[in-house]
Amino acid sequence: MKILVTTGMPGSGKEEFLKCCITRGAKVVRMGDIVRQKAKEFGLDPSDSSVGTLANEERRRYGNDIWAKRTIPFVGGDLVVIDGTRGLDEIRAFKHAFGEDLKVIAVHSSAKTRFERLKGRARSDAPLTKAEFDQRDRRELDWGLGEAIALADHMVINESTLRELKRRVDALLDEVLGKK
Amino acid sequence: MKILVTTGMPGSGKEEFLKCCITRGAKVVRMGDIVRQKAKEFGLDPSDSSVGTLANEERRRYGNDIWAKRTIPFVGGDLVVIDGTRGLDEIRAFKHAFGEDLKVIAVHSSAKTRFERLKGRARSDAPLTKAEFDQRDRRELDWGLGEAIALADHMVINESTLRELKRRVDALLDEVLGKK
Repeated sequence: MKILVTTGMPGSGKEEFLKCCITRGAKVVRMGDIVRQKAKEFGLDPSDSSVGTLANEERRRYGNDIWAKRTIPFVGGDLVVIDGTRGLDEIRAFKHAFGEDLKVIAVHSSAKTRFERLKGRARSDAPLTKAEFDQRDRRELDWGLGEAIALADHMVINESTLRELKRRVDALLDEVLGKK
Repeated sequence: MKILVTTGMPGSGKEEFLKCCITRGAKVVRMGDIVRQKAKEFGLDPSDSSVGTLANEERRRYGNDIWAKRTIPFVGGDLVVIDGTRGLDEIRAFKHAFGEDLKVIAVHSSAKTRFERLKGRARSDAPLTKAEFDQRDRRELDWGLGEAIALADHMVINESTLRELKRRVDALLDEVLGKK
């Protein structure tokens, strides 16, 4: 079993990375789904913003790695990608559970590229401003995302085309799966 | 004028990156030299550990970007590489001074690779332990190094040979200098 944990700033291309992994037969476990499932058990509307509040309350109550610990039972198969980690406490919990079979993959793009991508994705009636973009970066960094990126086992640079990203992810998966 | 600011975790290969830049005619400005020069003016022994204390005291007194501001006057020439930045406050000061001519370059290697390199460098009578390595990483991340890496304009992966690193740095410099 090989387990990859993805990390990266907003707009770096984590979703595209996941898609590339899926075409290679990976199972994707989204930590956000685990949170939403728990919210449902608590009788909350899974689409509601209260889900975020629940996630934070549970972190405060049971520790920063609580959502990692609740994700671990869902990890199984030859190749699993865990999406949605927030920082080093969660990564430590995953490493503790899976040891050397677990690799942290950071997807990196420059802020300029990420802003262009996220602007392209934003609704035309609600365009993304640079201030909103910087705020979102700041929030993610405050979760410890920068540390997770700095300490990643592998870095995937996603600065040009989707085709180039696929080529890089394929090479990375060959290496991780010992096919090269 | 093109200005590069290097960042990267200990053992990632920043010194080798600088050497590659020097062979391309870059001038290197080391923020550590600026600190040591100031220490001398204050009558301190530049090799003394009190230099670190001075650096921190000056940061507390004049702001986190004080050493960046004191470095700026020494930046001049066609291609300059600034080494030794500690985090986003300093990078903001450099961006403010140099605008689009300034690019932040992060050199990235996995913790496993960095530990092996630093172990190789350590004196045989004072081998580096994993605990010391982790402590040093922690200290650098507390300075905000993770955020600087996450928000870098370019990422140079240094996971294999020096020859491969040189190839990548050359390609990057061609891009930055507009030769490609």
